Order: sequence, then structure tokens, then C-alpha cells
Amino acid sequence: MIKVGIIGATGYAGAEIVRILMRHPEAKICWFGSKSYVDKRFADVYRNFFNIVEDVCLDDNIEKMAEEVDVIFTATPQGYLGGILTKEILSKVKVIDLSADYRIKDVSVYEKWYGIKHGSPELIEESVYGLCEVNREDIRNAVLLANPGCFTTTSILTAYPLVKEGLIDPDTLIIDAKSGTSGAGRGAKTPNLFCEVNESMKPYGVTTHRHTPEIEEQLGYAAEKEIMVSFTPHLAPMNRGILATEYASLVAKDGKLPGESDIRAAYEKYYKDEYFIRLLPDGEFPETKWVEGSNFVDISFKIDERTGRVIMMGALDNLVKGAAGQAVQNMNIMFGLDETMGLDMVPVYP
Amino acid sequence: MIKVGIIGATGYAGAEIVRILMRHPEAKICWFGSKSYVDKRFADVYRNFFNIVEDVCLDDNIEKMAEEVDVIFTATPQGYLGGILTKEILSKVKVIDLSADYRIKDVSVYEKWYGIKHGSPELIEESVYGLCEVNREDIRNAVLLANPGCFTTTSILTAYPLVKEGLIDPDTLIIDAKSGTSGAGRGAKTPNLFCEVNESMKPYGVTTHRHTPEIEEQLGYAAEKEIMVSFTPHLAPMNRGILATEYASLVAKDGKLPGESDIRAAYEKYYKDEYFIRLLPDGEFPETKWVEGSNFVDISFKIDERTGRVIMMGALDNLVKGAAGQAVQNMNIMFGLDETMGLDMVPVYP
Amino acid sequence: MIKVGIIGATGYAGAEIVRILMRHPEAKICWFGSKSYVDKRFADVYRNFFNIVEDVCLDDNIEKMAEEVDVIFTATPQGYLGGILTKEILSKVKVIDLSADYRIKDVSVYEKWYGIKHGSPELIEESVYGLCEVNREDIRNAVLLANPGCFTTTSILTAYPLVKEGLIDPDTLIIDAKSGTSGAGRGAKTPNLFCEVNESMKPYGVTTHRHTPEIEEQLGYAAEKEIMVSFTPHLAPMNRGILATEYASLVAKDGKLPGESDIRAAYEKYYKDEYFIRLLPDGEFPETKWVEGSNFVDISFKIDERTGRVIMMGALDNLVKGAAGQAVQNMNIMFGLDETMGLDMVPVYP
Amino acid sequence: MIKVGIIGATGYAGAEIVRILMRHPEAKICWFGSKSYVDKRFADVYRNFFNIVEDVCLDDNIEKMAEEVDVIFTATPQGYLGGILTKEILSKVKVIDLSADYRIKDVSVYEKWYGIKHGSPELIEESVYGLCEVNREDIRNAVLLANPGCFTTTSILTAYPLVKEGLIDPDTLIIDAKSGTSGAGRGAKTPNLFCEVNESMKPYGVTTHRHTPEIEEQLGYAAEKEIMVSFTPHLAPMNRGILATEYASLVAKDGKLPGESDIRAAYEKYYKDEYFIRLLPDGEFPETKWVEGSNFVDISFKIDERTGRVIMMGALDNLVKGAAGQAVQNMNIMFGLDETMGLDMVPVYP
Repeated sequence: MIKVGIIGATGYAGAEIVRILMRHPEAKICWFGSKSYVDKRFADVYRNFFNIVEDVCLDDNIEKMAEEVDVIFTATPQGYLGGILTKEILSKVKVIDLSADYRIKDVSVYEKWYGIKHGSPELIEESVYGLCEVNREDIRNAVLLANPGCFTTTSILTAYPLVKEGLIDPDTLIIDAKSGTSGAGRGAKTPNLFCEVNESMKPYGVTTHRHTPEIEEQLGYAAEKEIMVSFTPHLAPMNRGILATEYASLVAKDGKLPGESDIRAAYEKYYKDEYFIRLLPDGEFPETKWVEGSNFVDISFKIDERTGRVIMMGALDNLVKGAAGQAVQNMNIMFGLDETMGLDMVPVYP
Repeated sequence: MIKVGIIGATGYAGAEIVRILMRHPEAKICWFGSKSYVDKRFADVYRNFFNIVEDVCLDDNIEKMAEEVDVIFTATPQGYLGGILTKEILSKVKVIDLSADYRIKDVSVYEKWYGIKHGSPELIEESVYGLCEVNREDIRNAVLLANPGCFTTTSILTAYPLVKEGLIDPDTLIIDAKSGTSGAGRGAKTPNLFCEVNESMKPYGVTTHRHTPEIEEQLGYAAEKEIMVSFTPHLAPMNRGILATEYASLVAKDGKLPGESDIRAAYEKYYKDEYFIRLLPDGEFPETKWVEGSNFVDISFKIDERTGRVIMMGALDNLVKGAAGQAVQNMNIMFGLDETMGLDMVPVYP
Repeated sequence: MIKVGIIGATGYAGAEIVRILMRHPEAKICWFGSKSYVDKRFADVYRNFFNIVEDVCLDDNIEKMAEEVDVIFTATPQGYLGGILTKEILSKVKVIDLSADYRIKDVSVYEKWYGIKHGSPELIEESVYGLCEVNREDIRNAVLLANPGCFTTTSILTAYPLVKEGLIDPDTLIIDAKSGTSGAGRGAKTPNLFCEVNESMKPYGVTTHRHTPEIEEQLGYAAEKEIMVSFTPHLAPMNRGILATEYASLVAKDGKLPGESDIRAAYEKYYKDEYFIRLLPDGEFPETKWVEGSNFVDISFKIDERTGRVIMMGALDNLVKGAAGQAVQNMNIMFGLDETMGLDMVPVYP
Repeated sequence: MIKVGIIGATGYAGAEIVRILMRHPEAKICWFGSKSYVDKRFADVYRNFFNIVEDVCLDDNIEKMAEEVDVIFTATPQGYLGGILTKEILSKVKVIDLSADYRIKDVSVYEKWYGIKHGSPELIEESVYGLCEVNREDIRNAVLLANPGCFTTTSILTAYPLVKEGLIDPDTLIIDAKSGTSGAGRGAKTPNLFCEVNESMKPYGVTTHRHTPEIEEQLGYAAEKEIMVSFTPHLAPMNRGILATEYASLVAKDGKLPGESDIRAAYEKYYKDEYFIRLLPDGEFPETKWVEGSNFVDISFKIDERTGRVIMMGALDNLVKGAAGQAVQNMNIMFGLDETMGLDMVPVYP
């Protein structure tokens, strides 16, 4: 039985880790860490856990936690873990970080986009980027796991095979993403009030959203060169779900643009054995509701022959495959368990 | 492994039975019956089941089904099962009926409230009303199980201990219930369109809703007399969830009205060992979101000393404890399995 | 042209006063008072007013405001106006108060339910309760107008004729009310976040909601005796709208319970010439969406012959007839204008 | 007083024309035409009009209507008006068509994208495309007015000045649009049920949506050449609102890409005196809620220096500026009235 500690258990992503691990046959949460709710029962903070979780929230003492658990999940604000993590801690415990602190290899890029001085840049190199379907082999041996962002997971997985196979020009890639509001967290801010979000759609972070360099770095590995993309997130009036609609110009080979079968073959090459990636049939497009509450990513595409572009679409649940679910999937890989253990939830519909 | 057939698998309640049973360790769905989608893949009707259910929908032939499965769930319109069920079928297979056809013992009451001529009144007597926490012993031996309605389950469980113990006057009972829209089913009707339901609250079926006599019959057994209640359902702009707010006058004993500890003692007498009923702490009231996606019922109460009334409140997920979940709970009881098998889902939040 | 000042213009109710008065032909807002946004452009706080309102928010200096305007609307927290209002101010300006400070004649009742020491109890006596359709004559001469609460307006108007005519027993009155979330204001609080409210229904303030004594006082005048009601508010996942479902026992006259025509006659006696009250036809029940964005109250009823009760239902937009609209309606009456001036908005649907 | 007839008054767009015209000082609806509700009171179909509209729905007899009114609004399915309109009718009455039948000059393009044989191609030439801010002069003399589509209005107005001024390369234009569900109409279809739409985002009509050629034709006039764009609509869980996020590569002049002031100057050149177009300040992006219930379009942009693109964003209410509001604006222009008459609604918030 894997002993688990969570730092930031009382945020939405942290609570989703709890939801998943309470039914995981090989993991047991031993430490519900919370900055705001120390000594309060976890189930008093989230009433859905009433009679399910009896534990009381503890503080966020990572050094003590490292002595007592096998793996620590950190679902904390950007910069927090970077400021407290040390080699010594990593010598005692595996860490799965849901923040962005160790996702970007070039610390100057991190510091520029996040506006934060990184507290432990020397640890970045050994971190492994935890996009399971792409980096599985490296993840097996990871000690410090950088769990990808929600927009990032959607955006990368949706375009990855076509970039990798050179079927699209990555510099033409435009990603228009729509997110449910749980991605904004549980902090009490006026723009996230029900009456402000309900019945509205809005873009935000236009040209400046922090997930941009993360997408560029990872897709750049696939393209084997530096790339730049346009990424625009939008807030949608729903709790969960991310939908990414991605546009790119097809690249001709031998004077001919790739066709539907070429594109499909590329997706199947990388994903056909992936349990959590569902390639939809031709002509069907993903809906966030079809994956709600589950760890699936639904992906499809449509070629626009008129413009020579392909439109790629991907949908996932931002709190599951976009955060807690992928983190548990990474834990399963890191501990040699079946990758789907505790993660085979059927999407809830409607 | 229990072999399961479902008649009406492509309605919301039917699909929720599928969602639950796909992860039930001792049941296997062998027949996805559907009137509208024969020969269509089930996962083409509900894309959330893509790559999870590979089966094709079959017709609704109950006689053939009875030869091939151990239990049939019927999630069909009122009157349908009543018109086709026979003793012979019941000699071969257990039936769990999610419609109202066998819930009401007095066929004239059924025919009056439903406006339907009952097709097999001779079978009503042997049916067992499947409110698990109240009728568990009878359910063990049931062959024909009448699964309670969603409003009914909420309304009865919320008031049952106080009626049973004589702490409230059942003739003063007023039940004001609020339901999510999935209770209205997947039929394409203008009043259930997104734009009609969203941003609105409305009462319906005022004084005439068909769940009224079902509530009265069952609470009448607890009161050991005939009772009449006021029941008003409302449609709320959400997918899932029922909240019942129930009002009744307290009954004085020895010149003194019962107090908080008396009321709580009554609830605990009946429910303290019930896994699926969660009695909330004093001063906390149920929210439908705390039980979403799960088989729990959350219940609490507040005494209004000024008026001598008690306000009882209960919340559940209408598709789970209010339909498919309770149906599976009944199956577990009928087949001697652990009652929570396949039903220990943690509520999804947010 | 009436010169208007608003204290608390940047709350939801304050901003709704602005929305209405910007199109009122006889009123002009001269002072946008705000505690939090002094010196900020009003349209920067509410972008819907971009290019419509050019003014900058001023402070809440009521004494200075009293010198410059003809009427002050106060849309402020409970206790605020009570603490600063004086006879001198009232000698210079009319005040329409959207808070509860002057609604309840018995200051001890106010102080008990609100938990606030009243700062100017000597002014309560001269305040006029601004339920337009009931108190129109007194409102004409009011200097200090106590604008009714949103739940209160719905609850009282829905039951008033039946109480007044003695057709129901007011001590059996049970009011189950459902409110949109804008009633909770624009303050940044976790329970009002989108993800917390969406997909949920919950009761709150059970037996203790502050609108209870206000309802009791006003319906008590109609009953010509002290009465006590049960009032339970619920939060619904929508922006606007209040629906009240009210239950009461009919009172027999000459051994006979009143029938549908008696009840309808009572409603028509009081409301048939009221522009803003719409009595729905028999068998139709109000939906909050039918009144959204307008100053209408829709009312209907259904007799439950089985239980001898009548179910009364009323719906309005909590920010219009439940707050800003009724406040402007009161202003129109107080200044001798046509009562519907600036208030003839057609409800927005869908 | 302009006498108005409406064909298709009982759809959402038709009912929105009614909402606006009921408060228009110079127009009177004389004919509420409806295919499905002949002889039914209009206010029985839309209860928000109770006590406001007393008229009964008539049939859709356009010839008789042409004798009795000054202008006919047609809010009908594609192909309907094309099949019945004649020169004779147009000799008697002005027609404002909210369908697509006369929007596209090249009938073969219309027939290809709509899959409909056009019934009166000889009338297309004299129709005027009613994008008020662009075609105002032609609209003044229009007899047959083709009212633009909702996606089209948003998409064109958002990009028009930059295309017209040659600041962007129109062939790189990618339009990602999000729409509320009222755009799907009031027809009873399963995909538009509350439970199917709520809590979900989905793309549809990818590469094939019928508004594409309309956008291309109109922006092609601005570009003075044929252009092709990628247009992807999405369904969002809200009643009203369209948000278009548009991407295009900037065109260098004298070796230098245009900057923020160049872009803003272009927008101001065309829109600075337009009442209904609101150019938001730098750094602010439109939200559909800021324009809800009004005829405004909010527009802003952001330059992405890294990629050499500009992201343009526009938001409007699909039933107002995207349908009924623009139709009334066109009527105002065609009849020589003040263009804002009856259309100065302040957006409803929240």
C-alpha cells in the first residue's frame, strides 16, 4: 500500500486527488495537508466526503511528510514548491507536483512567463514532465514529476502525432481553448462568482497565458525545433471540462497534402493502444460532457480542403486528466502499478 | 456473475444502470434493450461509453430476455411493463421495475393518478416495494421489485423516522421538492430545451403529481393509518439532484414538544447503520451537489420552536439513489451480495 | 427632472437602479456613490455600462449628497443607513432605503433578527413600508421609504389577498422560496463561486432568515392580528428570479371551503388593476423566466381539495420588482409620476 | 406609425422582434404570423408577453400580409421565403428577411452550402445585405433586406476594419466562435435539451457551417478579392451571446508590422461614431454578458508580437444585434428613423 501525502488537499485539484485515491486499491492518504484548514476535518471543508474521509487536515510540513509517506502530491500555487523543495527531501520521497514549478526546463522562460524567481532551479533538470502517453518511459524512474497543466495536456495530446509526423507546420498552430470554471480554483474572487460567470463566455490571458511556453516546449520536442504557437484560453459557464480547437496548415509531401487516412494513421500510430485516449470516428467531434468525471481524452479532427488546414479537437475533464487523474496515472507508472488502477471511472452523463 | 438485461437502456435512467453495472464486479449486462435504437451501438447513443461498451442495442423482447438473463431492469414508461409482464416470465427471471407499475398496491389508486388501465393487476400483490433501508427483509426474497420513484425516495426517507415514531403529525406534512432536469427524461420536448429550463425555476404538477399516492401509501404504513400530504415538485436548472424540504407539526408528548435530541434520536434509530444515508450535523443542511454521482442521501432537520414545526430536508442524486443506484442496491440485496457492491462512488465535486 | 443620488451604486441592486434610471425620462443620476470604487469610472466596474455611463464613482457622503439631489437611494448593508441617517438629512431630501433598517416597526424585533443595534430608532416611525400595491397612499407622502426585501415582496404579494379576505388561516402559512444567486450580492465569498452554486440546490437560513419578521409584520396587518409563518429560502443555480410556493389551510365559511372562484375573486379584488401584478390563468403556474428583467410579479394558485389547502405561487425578478424596480416604482409614486415610468420593460426571453 | 407583419413570430428570433417592437415608438405589429400556432394567443406561446401582447397568431399568408402592412419581417427556416417571395409582393411592401435566402449573391454558392434549390434567384440581385455599420447607404433604399446571420455579424464586424485597411492577410483568418443555445431555435430536438447542453462545450459544423460563405463574401468585398477563412462554431451552455475569437497574420508595411496604435486607428476610422459598436480599452476583452439583451457589439484586439498575429475579439447578443435587433436597426434606416429608435436597451447584468 502506497502511503500518500497531499500538500494543498483542500483546493479543487487536491480534493479531486482525494476523490480518486479513496477508491484506489493500492494507495492510502496519510496526510491531508492544507494551509487554510489545519485542524479542521477534511469532510467539513468538502461535504461530499462526509462519512467517507474521517481525517483532519494537517499543516504543509513537507520535511516531516517526507519521513512518513512514499509519495507527495503538491497541488499548490506557482512558486510554492520551488521555494521549499530540496535534494534531501527528494532522497526520501517521490514528489508529483501539480504546479508549474518544474515543468519548464529553461528557468529564464519560467521566470519570465510566471513573474516568479525560481527557488530551486538546480532541481529542474532531474524533473520529468509527466505527460503519460508521451513520456511513459522516463516517468517510470522519475523522482520529481512535473504534472502537466490542464490546457497543456489537452493542447499537446490533440496535436502531438501530427507535429511528430511532420504532417502540420507547427508554426501555424493556433489553439483556441475553452475551460470550465473549476480551473480557476476555489479562491473567493469576484470574477469567479456564479453571477459573473453564468451566462457568459470570455477570453482571458490573450497572448500571455502561462501555459503557452509549456505547450511550445513539449511540441517543440516533437517537432525537433523551437516553435511558437498562438494560445487563447476562454472561460465557459460550466464546472468541468476543457475543449481545445486547434488549427494548423497541412504540410504537403510530394506535392500532395495529407488526407484523412494519413492523419488518422498518425493518431493511431501513437494512440491506438492508449486506454485513456479515445479517437472518435470520422465526422464526430468531442464534447466535454462525454468525458466528465473520467480520465479520458477524446480527440478527433477534420480536414478543411478549401484552406489546406486541419482542425484538431480534444476534450478532457480539467480536474481529472487535466490534473488529479493524470497525477494518479503518473503515480501508477512510477510505482509499477497498472496504469489505469483507480482511474477506470465511466464518464458521468448527463 | 449475474447476467443482466435492461429494457429501456437508452433512457437516462437506463444509461445510468449501465454506468454503474459496467464497474460492478458481479454483474454483466448481456442485453441492452431499446425501443428506438435497435441495431445501433449503445456507445453511439451515449458517447460517454465510447470504448467502454461495445454492445449493440437489441429489441425489448422480454420473453426471450427472460430465457437468457438472471435479472431484468425495466426503465420504461408507465404502463409498459404492466402490459407485458406475466407470471411465466417471473418464474424464470427476477424483475426490477423502475416504472411505477407495481409500486401502488391499490390498483384503483394507480389507475386514477396515472390515467392508465393496469394490464396485470394480479401481479401487484407479489411485488415488493424496493425502498432498501425500509423494506430490506422483504426485498431479499422479491421476484418482482418495484423500484421507488426519485421524489418518493427523497420524500419518504427524509420523513420516515419521525412519522414512524409519532413525532410529527403526518397529516400536516407538506413536501416541497426541487428536481434537476434529467428526471424529465431524454425525450425531445420544448419545455425541456436548454433555453427554456436554464435561468428558471417553476412548479409543476401542483396537487396532481403521480408520486403523491406513492408517498402517502408508504408513509401511511409507517403511521399505521391513511395519510394525505401536500406534494409540490419544482424543476430546477441543473442536470441532477433532488432536494426535498418537508414541513410538519411536531406532536407533543406529555405536554411537551419533542426537542432536537428527540428528533435526532429517531433518525439515528433507523439510519445510524445505513451506509447510504448520511445524517448531517446539527445546523447543516443538505445540498444536492454533495451527493452528485453517488448513491447517498443526505438528511438533516431544524426545529422551528416559534411555530412548533420541524423542517426536514433530504437530498439525493435522482439518477442514482433516485433510480439506477437504488435499483442496483436492490439487485445486490436480492442476490445476496454486499449491498454497497458497485455503489461506493464518491460524490463528484464540483 | 429628478436629481438622484445612489449610495451603494456598485452592488448588484445599485447597478440595477442605474440600469433602470438611465432610461427613465424624468430622473437623472447625479451621484454614483460607492465605498469601494471611489474615483473609479462606474463603467469600469460594470462593463455593460461602457459608453452609457460616463460618470466616476464618488464617496458615500450622505450629507453632501442631501444638498445636491432630490432623492437618495441607499443600496447598502443592513445597519449602515440606520447609523448615519438624521432628521436633518430627511428635511432636505427623500430617502428610499433598499436595506432593512426601517422596514420593521418594532425595533426590538429588528435588533433580534438582525443582531444589530439600530442607530436611529427614532426615525423608524415615520418610515413608510414601500410595498407599492398595498401601501400606495402612504407612499405618496413618504420622506423615508423602506423598500421591501425581495423574498418579502414575493411572499407577501402572493398571499396578501387571501389573508386580507380571511380565506386562509395565516398561522398555517408555509412559504418555501427559491432565489437566484444575485440576491447574495457581489461580495467575493466562496459559497457564491460559480463552481459551488452551479448544479446545486440548497436551503439556508432555515427558521432564522431575516425576512421572516418582515413578512409576518406586513401579513399581520392584513390579518389584523399577530401571525407566525414558516419561511425557508433556497439558493438556485440561476442569476435572477424568486419563486415562492406558499401553502395554507383554507378557512371554511358556513361550513364550506372556498372554491376556485372565491380565491380568484379575492386576487382580482386587490390586483385586477395593478399593472405590475399578472394573475395567471387557471392551471398555469409562474416561472421565474417569464418575468426576468421586468418589474412584473406573476401569481397563481391551486386548490388542493384533498387536503383543504391552497397552494399559492408567485415569481418576480429579485433585482427588479424585488429591489431596484420597486424602488423606482416608489420614487415614481413619491414624485407624482406615472407609476410605470421607466419600468415598462418587456421580460427578456429566453 | 409603421405597420409591421412578422412571419415566424413564434420562434426565438421572431419573439425577440416582438419584444423590441412592443416598445418601439414608431412601429406597431399588426400581424403575428406563425405556422404552428395559428389562432393561439401569442402570449400563450410566450408567457413573458402575458398582459403585454393581446393578439392572436395568424397564418403566414405573405400576400395578404403585403396588403396590410408596411414591412414584413421573416424569421423562417432557410428556403422558405425564397420559395414564396415575388416581385409583386416586393412592389407592395418592404421585406426584412432574417433567413439566409438573399444574403449570398452567387446562387450556386448558396445552393451548395445550404443544399437547397433557390426558389427565386432573380430576386437576389436587388437584395441589400443589412450589415448596418458597413452598408448603411444601400440599406436606406432597400426593399428586400437580407439581415445578416448571428455568427456572421460578429465575425465580420470584428475583422472588417483590419481587412479593409489591409492590416491583416485575410487568407490567414481563422474564426473560432462560441454561441449560446438560443441560436439553435425552439425546435424540440434531443441535442438541445437542457441535460445535453448544460455542462458541456462542443464544436459543430466544422469546416461546413453555412455562415462561412457569407463571411467570405462580405470580407471579400472589404479585401477587394476572393478570400477563404476557417470558421468553427461551438455551442456553449448559455442562452444568449456570441463570442468570436479571430486570428490573422499582420501584414508588414515598409518592413514593419502594424502596432497597437495602427490597429486601433483602423477600428476607430470605421467605428468611432457607431453607437452600437463599442471599442473596448486596450487590454480588455469582450464578455458576452456585457452586451446581453442589448444591440451592442463589443470589440477589442491584442497583438501577439511573438507570432506576428493579431487576435481580434467580438461579442454580441445573438438574438439582438445577431438577429432581431439588427433587423429593427435596418427597419429604422429603411424608414428614415433614428437608427437607435427602440434599440437603446442597457445590457442586463448580471
